[in-house]
Amino acid sequence: MNTFGNIFKVEIFGESHGKALGVCIDGSPAGIPLTEEDFVADLARRKSGAKGTTPRKEDDLPEIISGIFNGKTTGAPITILFKNNNTKSKDYSQLFNHPRPGHADYAARIKYNGYNDYTGGGHFSGRVTLGLVAAGVVAKKILKDIEINAKILEIGGSTDIESAINHAIETKDSIGGIIECVVKGVPTGLGEPFFMSVESQISAAVFSIPAIKGIEFGAGFAVAKLTGSQNNDDILNANGITRTNNAGGINGGISNGNDIVFRVAVKPTPSISLPQKTYNFETKNVEELIIQGRHDLCIALRVPPIIEAATAIALADLSMICKRK
Amino acid sequence: MNTFGNIFKVEIFGESHGKALGVCIDGSPAGIPLTEEDFVADLARRKSGAKGTTPRKEDDLPEIISGIFNGKTTGAPITILFKNNNTKSKDYSQLFNHPRPGHADYAARIKYNGYNDYTGGGHFSGRVTLGLVAAGVVAKKILKDIEINAKILEIGGSTDIESAINHAIETKDSIGGIIECVVKGVPTGLGEPFFMSVESQISAAVFSIPAIKGIEFGAGFAVAKLTGSQNNDDILNANGITRTNNAGGINGGISNGNDIVFRVAVKPTPSISLPQKTYNFETKNVEELIIQGRHDLCIALRVPPIIEAATAIALADLSMICKRK
Amino acid sequence: MNTFGNIFKVEIFGESHGKALGVCIDGSPAGIPLTEEDFVADLARRKSGAKGTTPRKEDDLPEIISGIFNGKTTGAPITILFKNNNTKSKDYSQLFNHPRPGHADYAARIKYNGYNDYTGGGHFSGRVTLGLVAAGVVAKKILKDIEINAKILEIGGSTDIESAINHAIETKDSIGGIIECVVKGVPTGLGEPFFMSVESQISAAVFSIPAIKGIEFGAGFAVAKLTGSQNNDDILNANGITRTNNAGGINGGISNGNDIVFRVAVKPTPSISLPQKTYNFETKNVEELIIQGRHDLCIALRVPPIIEAATAIALADLSMICKRK
Amino acid sequence: MNTFGNIFKVEIFGESHGKALGVCIDGSPAGIPLTEEDFVADLARRKSGAKGTTPRKEDDLPEIISGIFNGKTTGAPITILFKNNNTKSKDYSQLFNHPRPGHADYAARIKYNGYNDYTGGGHFSGRVTLGLVAAGVVAKKILKDIEINAKILEIGGSTDIESAINHAIETKDSIGGIIECVVKGVPTGLGEPFFMSVESQISAAVFSIPAIKGIEFGAGFAVAKLTGSQNNDDILNANGITRTNNAGGINGGISNGNDIVFRVAVKPTPSISLPQKTYNFETKNVEELIIQGRHDLCIALRVPPIIEAATAIALADLSMICKRK
Repeated sequence: MNTFGNIFKVEIFGESHGKALGVCIDGSPAGIPLTEEDFVADLARRKSGAKGTTPRKEDDLPEIISGIFNGKTTGAPITILFKNNNTKSKDYSQLFNHPRPGHADYAARIKYNGYNDYTGGGHFSGRVTLGLVAAGVVAKKILKDIEINAKILEIGGSTDIESAINHAIETKDSIGGIIECVVKGVPTGLGEPFFMSVESQISAAVFSIPAIKGIEFGAGFAVAKLTGSQNNDDILNANGITRTNNAGGINGGISNGNDIVFRVAVKPTPSISLPQKTYNFETKNVEELIIQGRHDLCIALRVPPIIEAATAIALADLSMICKRK
Repeated sequence: MNTFGNIFKVEIFGESHGKALGVCIDGSPAGIPLTEEDFVADLARRKSGAKGTTPRKEDDLPEIISGIFNGKTTGAPITILFKNNNTKSKDYSQLFNHPRPGHADYAARIKYNGYNDYTGGGHFSGRVTLGLVAAGVVAKKILKDIEINAKILEIGGSTDIESAINHAIETKDSIGGIIECVVKGVPTGLGEPFFMSVESQISAAVFSIPAIKGIEFGAGFAVAKLTGSQNNDDILNANGITRTNNAGGINGGISNGNDIVFRVAVKPTPSISLPQKTYNFETKNVEELIIQGRHDLCIALRVPPIIEAATAIALADLSMICKRK
Repeated sequence: MNTFGNIFKVEIFGESHGKALGVCIDGSPAGIPLTEEDFVADLARRKSGAKGTTPRKEDDLPEIISGIFNGKTTGAPITILFKNNNTKSKDYSQLFNHPRPGHADYAARIKYNGYNDYTGGGHFSGRVTLGLVAAGVVAKKILKDIEINAKILEIGGSTDIESAINHAIETKDSIGGIIECVVKGVPTGLGEPFFMSVESQISAAVFSIPAIKGIEFGAGFAVAKLTGSQNNDDILNANGITRTNNAGGINGGISNGNDIVFRVAVKPTPSISLPQKTYNFETKNVEELIIQGRHDLCIALRVPPIIEAATAIALADLSMICKRK
Repeated sequence: MNTFGNIFKVEIFGESHGKALGVCIDGSPAGIPLTEEDFVADLARRKSGAKGTTPRKEDDLPEIISGIFNGKTTGAPITILFKNNNTKSKDYSQLFNHPRPGHADYAARIKYNGYNDYTGGGHFSGRVTLGLVAAGVVAKKILKDIEINAKILEIGGSTDIESAINHAIETKDSIGGIIECVVKGVPTGLGEPFFMSVESQISAAVFSIPAIKGIEFGAGFAVAKLTGSQNNDDILNANGITRTNNAGGINGGISNGNDIVFRVAVKPTPSISLPQKTYNFETKNVEELIIQGRHDLCIALRVPPIIEAATAIALADLSMICKRK
C-alpha cells in the first residue's frame, strides 16, 4: 500500500527514529548514470537549517544498496538508504496517549491498534519524504528532457516570506503556504483518460506528502467563475501550443504539449509549542498538551523539492506506460 | 489503464457514439442485494433534461450482464451496459481536423495517432461517466453505513444557480461551478500513509471525471493562510471527534472518524456555440470554429452524483484493503 | 481479482447461463486492425461439435461493444460480448446441494456463502474461456511477429486420439490429455527476473483455465533426472541460438531468443454420467449422484486455442512492460 | 516488476556481490510479534554448507530496518537487509563475454543492453532468494494456523540422496531434483476463479525461484492418463474433506479445504566445472568455457525453504484478498 506506479514502482519505507529509512525503486531502465552525488542538490533543498525549520540535524547521506553497477542503473531494483543518527525518542513518549491535534497520532493509533511506531511520528514523519526525494532524483533522470520546478508562491498568506517566518517565530505559531509547480517539455499524450489521468496521478502522488490539503491545475478553482469563452485555450499550431494555459497543460486527462502547471496548499505544521487542549487517553479528559521536541515552524519551506519528486515519479510512470504504442 | 482499485476494481469502457458503454466491477463481495432498480436514483440525478443541460436524451437504462444471481451479487465480476440510442455522429466529423479549444480533441488525436473515436468525444465524452455512476451505486451498497452527499455550492461564481444558468443561456456561453462532498459515518483508519492516502485515492478517482480542475480537503487552500493554532482540530473524545474539522476528516492520509469533506472545481463546458479561433489541421491555419451538436451549458449541474460515485469507489476499495487486519 | 496484466489488462466476466459473457481489454495500442471476423478461427477451434465434446451448441458470435473505430483499435478499452442462447438451467438445480466431485461446486458454495450462480457452473464454467480466447486474438495481433501454436500430444495416455475418444464414449467416462505449446519468434529479453518471469506469467495465465493441473517448460520434470552437462544448452551464436532447448527458451525467467516450449496437463472433465458417491448438504449423507446435463467427455480437445490465448495475453503484457527501455 | 502481491506486497532487491540484498514487505498487519530470531530456522535450512552446496560462506544475518516497533509489526513496510561480506568478484569477469550455458548471462546481457551487474550472477543469483525466505517468514506468521512443509522427493532421479550427491561430486557434474510441498490447514475459499487461482498465484511465485522448470498440483501430469471416475475426489462431509486428493486441494482455482499438494522440478545447477563449448562475444566463436568460482552441485538441496516461502507469500496475499467479504 506504500507503493506507487505501474511500471516505475516506488516503495517508501522507514520511520523517523528507526535504524534507517529509504526507498526501493523498481522498473528503472538500465544504463542511466547514477551516483550518490546526484542526490545532493535535491536533498539539500529539502534539508532543514534555514530559519523556520527544525533544529534536528541529519546528514541525509544516501547509501545506494542495489541496482547500480559501474555508476549506471542495471535495470534491477534500486534501493537507497538514509541512516537515522540524531534521534531523541524520549521526546515523544507522552504523545501516544495524548495525541496531537492536527497530527496523525490519533488516526494511526486506531488504525494499527496501538502497534504503530509513534516515536518521532514514526512512518508518518515528514522525514519519510527523504525516500520520495531520492526516487524523484531517479525519475528526473529518466525524464531527461522534462524540467520540473516548484517554488513557493506565498507563506502565511504573504509573498514576503522573510517577514512571515519572523512573525511565526515571534508568536511561536506555525504557518502554511502555497507552492506552484511548472513542468516544461512534457510530450503530448501522457496520461490515460479514466483513472490514470495526469491530474489523477500527480494528485495521488502529491497527496501522499504530509500536510498537503489542496491541489489545482491551470486556472484551478478560478475556472468555477469563468465562462467557456474565457477559459478555453485556443490552439495556435500543430504542436498544440495554446494562447492561454487555463488547462494547465492537460485536457481530458492527457498532456497537451503545453507546460503542466499546478499549485498545492500546505498546511501549517501541527506541532506547535503553544499550549493546546486535546483528549488524553490515560486520564480520559480533554487536557492541556505542551508539545516538546524539535519541529518545523513552516514545513512549506521544505516542500518544493518533494513536490517536484512526486511529480517526477508520476510522470516517469505515465511516460513508461505510454511507450506501449 | 482505465482501471481503478486494488481489491474493488472498476473498469470503464465505451464511447459516446458506440454500441454501448458500461462498466465492469471486480471484487464485489457476494450476497449484496442489487437490481436494475437500484441504479435509477443516481442515474436520474446525472441525467440531462434540466435547464442548462444537453438536449440529447438517452434512456440510460442499465442492463446487468453478469455477476448477479437471484437479485444478489455472486462475488463474480459485475458488468453493466448502457446502450447508445440517440447518436448523431455526423455532427462531429469536422472536429477531428479542427480540434475544439479546451477539449481533449487535440491531445487524443496525438496520443492515439489519429485512431481515436472522435464522434461525440468518443471515450473522452462525459457520457462515459455513466459507468462511473453505476459502479458508484455498487460501491455505496458495500459501504452501507457510510453516507455520501455531494451538492452544488456555486455556479458561475454565484450561489443563485437559477440566475447564473439563465445568464449563460442568454450569452450562449458555458459556466463552471463548485461542488462540495460530505461523507458521514466513515470509520477511523481508512487509507494508507504513503501513496494510498484517502486524499490520494479520492483525488485520483475524482480527477478521472472530465472537467474537474481542482480539489481541496477540509479547510483546503485556506490552510495556507492559517496558523497552526487556528488550523489544528482539537480532539474531544476517545472516538476522535474534533471541535473543528479543518482536516476534512483526514490526518496523515488516514480517516480520523470525522466527516470527510472536500470541494472540487468544475470548469465550464468547453463546447460552446460562440465562435472560437483555433488551429485547423487541414488548412494549417488558425481559423474560426463554430461548434455544432448538442452540449451542456453547465456540466457542473450533472456532476454531484458522479463525484459521489468516484468517492464511493475510492472508499470501497480502501475499506476492503483495510480488512487485512 | 479477475484481471490479468500490468499494461495489457484483461478482465473476464460472465456466467454460463447468464445474459452474456465476455471480456474487457485495456491497454491495447491504437491502430491495430480488428474486426469480428478476426475472432472466427480461434473461436471455431475452441467450439464444441467434434466427437467427445458437449452437445450444447452456441453460435459464439463475438459482438464488439467498444474500443474499435473504422475497423481499428482506438487505444480505449475493447469490450467483447458473447450472448448465451442455448441454456438449460433446470439441469443444474440439484447440484447446489449435492456438489459434484472434482468440480468447483463445493469450494464456490463456501467461498461465496452460497450466493454463487451455480447454473451451468456459473462463472466457473469452461464457457467463460470464450472471453480468454477473444482477448488472445487481440494479443496475438499485438505480438505480430510471434507465432503461438498449441497442439494435443496425447489423450488418455495415448497418441491415438480417435481410439481414446471412442473408448471414453463407450465407457461413459471422461479422459484427460497433454497439450504442448510452442512460441516462435520471441525476442530476447521478455520477462523480469523476480515474480514476473516468463514462466511466472505464462503459468499464472494458464492456471486460470479450468482443468489444468500441471505445467512444465523445456525439458520440464525430466530436468530433475539430468546432470548439468546434459541439461545445459550450449550457445551457438550472437543471437543466443542454442544447440538443444532444454530451457524451453527461458533462462533466469527471461526469454533467450529460442522457441518458448511448454506442456500442460489437462484433467478429465469432472462431470461424468457414471454414478458417483458424494456428500449431499440436504440429507447430510454421502449419496449417489447422477449428473444430468450436457458435458464434454474430453475437454482437452478444446483447450489448445485457450492455451494459445493465455500465452498470448501473458506475452503481450510482458512485451509492453519491456518497452520501458 | 520485482513485486509480488496485491495486498501483501513483496519486493526483492539486491545483487550477489553488491553491498547488501534484501526485501521490502508492504501490507503486513500490525501487531505480529517479529524479531530477527524468527528468521534463523528458515535461513539456516536455505544455507550452504552441506555436501553438494557452495563453499561460499555467508552469515546471512537479517537486519530489520523498518516496520517493527517493540518486537511487533507496526503495519508500516518491513525492510530486511542481508549484507554481502564474502564476495570474490574477480571470479566472474570473463563470463560477461563468454556466457554460461543454462544460465541467465546471455539473456540478461541482451535485456539490459550490457548494463546488468554480472558479478556473481548479479540480481539473477540464487543468493537473491534470501529476501524471498525472509518474506516467507513474515507470511508464515500471518498464516498462523496454516502449516507449510516442503521436502525433497528425489535427487538426480534417485531417492537415495546421499549417493546421488556423492556421484555428482565424483563426476564434477551437477544434478537436479524434485521437491514436494504440502500445505495443511488451508481454509476453504482462498483463490479467485480467473487469473488469481491458487495454482496461478503459487506457480507465479514459485517460478520466480531460479532453476524451477515445472510444477504440478495434486495428481499433476498423471491426470492426463486418468479417467474422470478415477480422478474425481468424492466429497465425504460438510467440511469438503475428500476420499482422495487428486485435485491437490484446489478446484476451480479455489482451495477446497483439503491439503494443498504440489511438486516442482529443480534443474541441475548450470555452473559446472566440466568444460563446455559456448559462444564467446569477444572472439565471436564457439569456444571452450571452464567456469571458475564457487557453486552448488545440487541447488535442489537448498530449495525447500524457498518453495515454502514462495507458497506462504502467495497464500498470505490470497488470504488478505479473501477478507473483503
